[in-house]
Amino acid sequence: MTLKPLADRVVVKMVESEETTKSGIVLPGSAKEKPQMAEVIAVGPGTVVDGKEVKMEVKVGDKVIISKYAGTEVKFDGQEYTILKQSDILAIVE
Amino acid sequence: MTLKPLADRVVVKMVESEETTKSGIVLPGSAKEKPQMAEVIAVGPGTVVDGKEVKMEVKVGDKVIISKYAGTEVKFDGQEYTILKQSDILAIVE
Amino acid sequence: MTLKPLADRVVVKMVESEETTKSGIVLPGSAKEKPQMAEVIAVGPGTVVDGKEVKMEVKVGDKVIISKYAGTEVKFDGQEYTILKQSDILAIVE
Amino acid sequence: MTLKPLADRVVVKMVESEETTKSGIVLPGSAKEKPQMAEVIAVGPGTVVDGKEVKMEVKVGDKVIISKYAGTEVKFDGQEYTILKQSDILAIVE
Amino acid sequence: MTLKPLADRVVVKMVESEETTKSGIVLPGSAKEKPQMAEVIAVGPGTVVDGKEVKMEVKVGDKVIISKYAGTEVKFDGQEYTILKQSDILAIVE
Amino acid sequence: MTLKPLADRVVVKMVESEETTKSGIVLPGSAKEKPQMAEVIAVGPGTVVDGKEVKMEVKVGDKVIISKYAGTEVKFDGQEYTILKQSDILAIVE
Amino acid sequence: MTLKPLADRVVVKMVESEETTKSGIVLPGSAKEKPQMAEVIAVGPGTVVDGKEVKMEVKVGDKVIISKYAGTEVKFDGQEYTILKQSDILAIVE
Repeated sequence: MTLKPLADRVVVKMVESEETTKSGIVLPGSAKEKPQMAEVIAVGPGTVVDGKEVKMEVKVGDKVIISKYAGTEVKFDGQEYTILKQSDILAIVE
Repeated sequence: MTLKPLADRVVVKMVESEETTKSGIVLPGSAKEKPQMAEVIAVGPGTVVDGKEVKMEVKVGDKVIISKYAGTEVKFDGQEYTILKQSDILAIVE
Repeated sequence: MTLKPLADRVVVKMVESEETTKSGIVLPGSAKEKPQMAEVIAVGPGTVVDGKEVKMEVKVGDKVIISKYAGTEVKFDGQEYTILKQSDILAIVE
Repeated sequence: MTLKPLADRVVVKMVESEETTKSGIVLPGSAKEKPQMAEVIAVGPGTVVDGKEVKMEVKVGDKVIISKYAGTEVKFDGQEYTILKQSDILAIVE
Repeated sequence: MTLKPLADRVVVKMVESEETTKSGIVLPGSAKEKPQMAEVIAVGPGTVVDGKEVKMEVKVGDKVIISKYAGTEVKFDGQEYTILKQSDILAIVE
Repeated sequence: MTLKPLADRVVVKMVESEETTKSGIVLPGSAKEKPQMAEVIAVGPGTVVDGKEVKMEVKVGDKVIISKYAGTEVKFDGQEYTILKQSDILAIVE
Repeated sequence: MTLKPLADRVVVKMVESEETTKSGIVLPGSAKEKPQMAEVIAVGPGTVVDGKEVKMEVKVGDKVIISKYAGTEVKFDGQEYTILKQSDILAIVE
């Protein structure tokens, strides 16, 4: 069973990350703010906004930075996903 | 007696779902948040928004994920339905 | 004396309905929420929104489902009517 | 001295109305909600909204139903008028 | 020194007015609400909104009715003026 | 080091002004409301809004009246400036 | 690993600045308001808004003034960045 997003929506899965502060202390994921890095799981076909075609510029497997609170969290097959519009993706991590 | 949605609206019926957590405990539908999965019952003819045609991309019988709180709940023939715009459908479950 | 709605407006009269719950108990109209089913009494000539013609798709006598709180209630000739835009009509009951 | 409304504005004067309830009791104007019926006193020349011409469809002397709280109340020559846009006129009473 | 408004803005000066109530009592200006009648002091060159030219339809010396709270009050040369857009002028008094 | 505003933005410096009330008392700048007169320090190249070119109509050295609270205050080289859009400039003082 | 902003977004890094008040006291960065000067780290490819192309006018290495609170702060590789739209950049410092 898979999720097929409509229009310019993207399904992502948040990435828990470890982080080393400047002083060298590792903060485990649970002690930090909501993570903002996510992996793209599924990509919609694109859409038209204000008469201009919106092409999808992210692809499955991309690591992306998303706006905090962007999109809608859904539980599906026991996993948590976020479905958001491509315009809520801030940057791709390369 | 049937509901015939206007424009780009869709009539759906929420789907109660069982869910197994990672630890294997089954949460019955009544103990969870508002479900977000729904079955499409009727589909409007489409419409025009900002001068562009909105084609309907869902069909009767599709299982869909919808935004929490999207649309309007209506009681009809003793059943509860939600009437929402297609743009409030996040993804199709295939 | 009649009401002639302007533009894409529609005059409707709310329909009081009886409802049988699954357990067979009849709830009289006064014990329920605001009804959402209405009968179309008069239909405006249509209008233009964002440069596109809005055609009227409902006709006098149609039974329709409307958004809760949509439109403006008016008293006219001792009767209560609601005047709303066609876009606030969710579905036609057939 | 007269008021000449600009663009798609209309000057109206609220109409105090008597009303007979179903049980036959007459409610004088002062015991009711703000009246919603008004008489058109002056009509602007029309305007252009979103690139489309707005033609004036009401004329001086028309009885109209207006949205509660629509427009701006002005005192002029010791009388109270309401100046509102034609789009805030819901229906013409014929 | 003069004020030259930009675009579709108009400089007006509020007019204090005396008013006779129906019963014949004169209310001096200080006992009333904010006045809504103003005299046009300067008129901008016009502008373009949504791709359509906005022509100026008021001229210096016109008496106009303005929306309460419309525009911005400015003190200039020891006098109080209001600078507002022409679209906030409701009617011309002739 | 200079500030080069982008698009239709303008850099201004607020002008402290003395004012003589009608009764002849001089209020020094510190006892008054936020000043609304400013001098233009730098002007952006213009931009396009809703498909129409926005030409810059103010020039360096102009004295202008601006909306209260318009724009963003910035400290630069130990001085306070306000960067705002040309559309927030109400009038030029000539 | 690098951040590649989408559309008309820009990645910037806030610049801590020292400032000398008029009286000659140096305020270290930590005692001041949120800084508004930033250095451009990465620039998106541009986008289309309302049917008009948005060209990128800033380049990597530019010093810019940004709106307070504009954009989204992200932590990446142990550093703090802000991702914002080019339209939230007020001016370039030259």
